[in-house]
Amino acid sequence: MNKKYNLAVVGTNFIVPRFIDAAERSGYFHLHSIVSRKTQSGLCFRSANGYDSDVVIHENIADMLNDDKVDVVYLASPNAIHFPQAAACIKAGKHVIVEKPMTSNTRELLSLIALAKANNVLLMDAMKSLLCPNFSILVDNLSRVGRIRQCTSTYSKISSRYQGYLDGNNPNTFNRMLSNGSVMDLGVYCIHPFVHLFGSPEQVHAYADLLDSGVDAAGIVILKYPQFHVNITHSKTCATTNSSEIQGEDGTIVIDNISTLTSLKFVDKKGEETEISAPQDPNSIFYIAQHLGETISSGLKESAVNTHALSTKVLTVLDEVRRQTGVRFPADDR
Amino acid sequence: MNKKYNLAVVGTNFIVPRFIDAAERSGYFHLHSIVSRKTQSGLCFRSANGYDSDVVIHENIADMLNDDKVDVVYLASPNAIHFPQAAACIKAGKHVIVEKPMTSNTRELLSLIALAKANNVLLMDAMKSLLCPNFSILVDNLSRVGRIRQCTSTYSKISSRYQGYLDGNNPNTFNRMLSNGSVMDLGVYCIHPFVHLFGSPEQVHAYADLLDSGVDAAGIVILKYPQFHVNITHSKTCATTNSSEIQGEDGTIVIDNISTLTSLKFVDKKGEETEISAPQDPNSIFYIAQHLGETISSGLKESAVNTHALSTKVLTVLDEVRRQTGVRFPADDR
Repeated sequence: MNKKYNLAVVGTNFIVPRFIDAAERSGYFHLHSIVSRKTQSGLCFRSANGYDSDVVIHENIADMLNDDKVDVVYLASPNAIHFPQAAACIKAGKHVIVEKPMTSNTRELLSLIALAKANNVLLMDAMKSLLCPNFSILVDNLSRVGRIRQCTSTYSKISSRYQGYLDGNNPNTFNRMLSNGSVMDLGVYCIHPFVHLFGSPEQVHAYADLLDSGVDAAGIVILKYPQFHVNITHSKTCATTNSSEIQGEDGTIVIDNISTLTSLKFVDKKGEETEISAPQDPNSIFYIAQHLGETISSGLKESAVNTHALSTKVLTVLDEVRRQTGVRFPADDR
Repeated sequence: MNKKYNLAVVGTNFIVPRFIDAAERSGYFHLHSIVSRKTQSGLCFRSANGYDSDVVIHENIADMLNDDKVDVVYLASPNAIHFPQAAACIKAGKHVIVEKPMTSNTRELLSLIALAKANNVLLMDAMKSLLCPNFSILVDNLSRVGRIRQCTSTYSKISSRYQGYLDGNNPNTFNRMLSNGSVMDLGVYCIHPFVHLFGSPEQVHAYADLLDSGVDAAGIVILKYPQFHVNITHSKTCATTNSSEIQGEDGTIVIDNISTLTSLKFVDKKGEETEISAPQDPNSIFYIAQHLGETISSGLKESAVNTHALSTKVLTVLDEVRRQTGVRFPADDR
């Protein structure tokens, strides 16, 4: 039986109960505390999700960090505050897993990585794609496409908060102050696996159309590699029915949903389709939680998959995308 | 009953019998002569397709143009020779319909348009998409997507001649001398309807990976409009399963096959799909032939749909794409 690590979660948005479900089912974690800016919201969140009444509610991170029982912190707060919050966790000697993108920019991330090393705690990127079992199947089947000639990837979905934005309610998800927007929230899912597969691109070309709030409504990111391009489209203000694809001279791998790799098929050059995906846990965060548990219990301070180097390469691409598209965050000027 | 126009066709590739079928079924045309560089090939083509034995075979355009009975010429020769051949037809007082792209570059096209005007004959672009009945349905449904936030379009298909290219046989379709390649052959299908719908883009950005022959194997074209981008991927060396899409804040129009608009659906923002396409003639060239017949019999010298202005705007985009991607044709230096 694994030692159960005491988990604190920061944030009460829709992703947090899914992380807690994954963490508890992984067998590695026990929900210990919830950080919510308002105690009342934390209490509602705890009861609405049926968590034990001994789960502690804290109104701020500092109080939670003072609790010696907390082993690991999951940060699902707005992007802009990942950096100060993760730094506080690290300084308090807690392991920390941070929702994607880990920080507002590369400078913050490099500083965080150095801090984690100095404090000998685990710092991990919660990007889930590479840890889904179907990602291994994708890698195993990659050679079937032959020489790669083109990749396309898309994540375009109308945010449930977009109507609120149009109504003038300034929701977090379209708020420049919080380091949000389309490429940070959805485009990053398309960038991460391709940078993992093919390394840092030779060049990045980016285009976007911005909202009045200053974040991107929709955009394009092109990753140039020596012999092909990855063409990424992302949006939080319109939706697509298309899949991501790795297209080669001998066939195409079709990836339905680049964030969870729910379905994978290989289409040969005659158009014959073969389903190659395996069934996955419906809550794909399960694989992140399982990997986090394995990594901590092995005494490692860095994931062997979601490495610090990979997160840094991805944030370097995001920085360049924002430079070219004119999306600038307050965090960039600190 | 319409007057039947005597039709001469130049070329014997796979598209020509489809044009002849369309032309004859339209009721406007009668196949009169075939131009084929080798009489023997022309004879084989005539008998293989079951055309009447009184259809004349010519080894060169000049002989065919000397025949007063020919009213209209369909040019399906390699792109590089569209210009000299069309110019010869016009000078001989024949109406001429030219396969897409009409010429190697804008300079040639402008010269051809001026020549057609001076000679008072019809010059028409054989690009078929806008003339398919489903294109009108697309236009009628466009407002359903609300404010457009992003368009994507794709035409990627492995050419049946690509293995021959890899085997060193230098087929026409990958031959720089003939003004060929991916964007000229397939990408143009994605550019044409969007330039028709939204006008000349403010900016064009293009990327491509070239074959050793100097033409593009696969590429990306981005058309920038004031409030959104059209993201085009095209290839003749790999294939896609994706559709073209017009994505708006209220829903998405999904276009399956941008060249023929075989299937159109509207997906609302809740994900509800509605099929909106009508059945079309399986040979979509039928609509080109029908429109050509109507245009000639109305005494017009320019199509009201595939206008000279539209063809010029499209070739201007193609010129810019090739400038940015380094695909240069001998025709550009003449």
